[in-house]
Amino acid sequence: MPADTPLPHFDDVLDAAARIAPHARTTPVLRAGALDAHAGCRLLFKAECLQRAGAFKFRGACNAVFSLEDDAATRGVVTHSSGNHGAALALAARLRGIPCHVVVPEGAVRSKLALIAGQGAILHRCEATIAAREAMCAQVQRASGATLVHPYAHPRVIAGQGTAALELLGEAADLDVVVVPVGGGGLASGTAIALAGCAPNVELVLAEPAGAADALQSLERGERVTDIVPDTICDGLRGTLGEPNFRILRDHGAQVLAIDDDATVAAMRRLLEHLKLLVEPSSAIALAAVLAHPQRFAGRRVGIVLSGGNVDPDRLPWAGR
Amino acid sequence: MPADTPLPHFDDVLDAAARIAPHARTTPVLRAGALDAHAGCRLLFKAECLQRAGAFKFRGACNAVFSLEDDAATRGVVTHSSGNHGAALALAARLRGIPCHVVVPEGAVRSKLALIAGQGAILHRCEATIAAREAMCAQVQRASGATLVHPYAHPRVIAGQGTAALELLGEAADLDVVVVPVGGGGLASGTAIALAGCAPNVELVLAEPAGAADALQSLERGERVTDIVPDTICDGLRGTLGEPNFRILRDHGAQVLAIDDDATVAAMRRLLEHLKLLVEPSSAIALAAVLAHPQRFAGRRVGIVLSGGNVDPDRLPWAGR
Repeated sequence: MPADTPLPHFDDVLDAAARIAPHARTTPVLRAGALDAHAGCRLLFKAECLQRAGAFKFRGACNAVFSLEDDAATRGVVTHSSGNHGAALALAARLRGIPCHVVVPEGAVRSKLALIAGQGAILHRCEATIAAREAMCAQVQRASGATLVHPYAHPRVIAGQGTAALELLGEAADLDVVVVPVGGGGLASGTAIALAGCAPNVELVLAEPAGAADALQSLERGERVTDIVPDTICDGLRGTLGEPNFRILRDHGAQVLAIDDDATVAAMRRLLEHLKLLVEPSSAIALAAVLAHPQRFAGRRVGIVLSGGNVDPDRLPWAGR
Repeated sequence: MPADTPLPHFDDVLDAAARIAPHARTTPVLRAGALDAHAGCRLLFKAECLQRAGAFKFRGACNAVFSLEDDAATRGVVTHSSGNHGAALALAARLRGIPCHVVVPEGAVRSKLALIAGQGAILHRCEATIAAREAMCAQVQRASGATLVHPYAHPRVIAGQGTAALELLGEAADLDVVVVPVGGGGLASGTAIALAGCAPNVELVLAEPAGAADALQSLERGERVTDIVPDTICDGLRGTLGEPNFRILRDHGAQVLAIDDDATVAAMRRLLEHLKLLVEPSSAIALAAVLAHPQRFAGRRVGIVLSGGNVDPDRLPWAGR
């Protein structure tokens, strides 16, 4: 997206909440005493892993799809996605009864591809480079007239992702801080807008894999760092922070914590044991960030968005270690 | 309990709901489209694995503990339990500030013992026979004056367990059938009373391990069968149907389905993959019953109580098979 793309505002998050209400789930806010005791703070988990299609991504995809004018909608939507956004967009398109094309790079997680195909999307395979993805997307757009719904930089997607924080704040009004993972920055920037609009005193902390810490570097330097080669188990967080996402997070003063994969895997196991929820590493990283910085969070009320749960139960990362 | 123990009624379930409200969680009712598609019916899961202490057992234990008169309460409570009831009673006692003694048989699941001890209960170990358990319980009662809270035959426990179905019906008023696991019969008989009181047209189906099918035989014969040696992975369902529980289930015409452990393990894996919830085999058996009898449930709205989630994530039963 070019640097002059208009940024979404709090009203867009409110509109998104109303638009997706007939389709999205209001996910529960969960707690576990054992995790509170271990973390030394009060943890409230917004369980977006229980969202339709298994992740918060459905919020933004649904908002984008149901925002389309009828004539554009009939030509369908297209995206490139390593997984959850593809499945979410496919489901949203199916609910509206329009075609969905998904460009999937080689090496995408098997269980996530199955979810995308299972929603009836048309898969277009390509090499795992950004250039190959974008070329294939452009080709599909030319051939079909489909509208591109970018996984995290699209303003309607950002606004949709902000609705998770809106719901969390509605159930837990007295939070001190909200922690979400950051990859491309759709959830992070949507959350920033939601917090600024209805709970400006609540701090926003972003959890980022140490092996893909472009958001951390970008916000420190004040300009986007786009040349990092990601090396992390968090497959949903390997993307580079989007341009509008960067601007929003910079303007809102979001803080980033870089987290090692080992801590993320340990947090994932802990969530399964004590919260009984299977989340993907890209989600567990938010709890890992809290556990890695106990003094920072001590005694506070901490909201965590558990962003997704699309994991293969036969390949849990601590098994066989 | 003797055969003339007064049975709890629907009013007792309502009283229990009010009594435990300040302490117990209102657990969410969850859905997963992929499971609906696989089962050919509409499934609504009451996620009691997210209850405090990890199982519905907290409802009954909390009702029993907070029903005690002050002078009896100060002398504490005692129970014998292979796991979830022990942990639940320990938590309830801690919340009231009274002692809790738990008699635990050799061979109890390690992760469940840790939960009991973690709640501050005093553990009394004994051999894994009914006689040894009862003798140890009696000895603790004599020494401490503690009140025995039986895991499933105590009327206040039965009434408390019925509150899960009450909440489920409140969120999903148009159910056709409710499926719960049956072991000692606390949840099953409490659910029967709740359904009879507020949704008499809703069918009650009980899921029982084929290797411990005493409830099935007892209800078929019209008298309790107490000589079965259990052989099942469902450690929470190895107990024999209690006497008051038998009378309640017989009077309510509950149906029992006997389920093989392999089907239960497959359902447990499926719940982790599609509902993202880790439940113990003793809980997954309810979904296994629905999947094993597709014609019986086809097109119906099926409520399932996922009774507990206390599983060791390092010992998932499908790993290494």
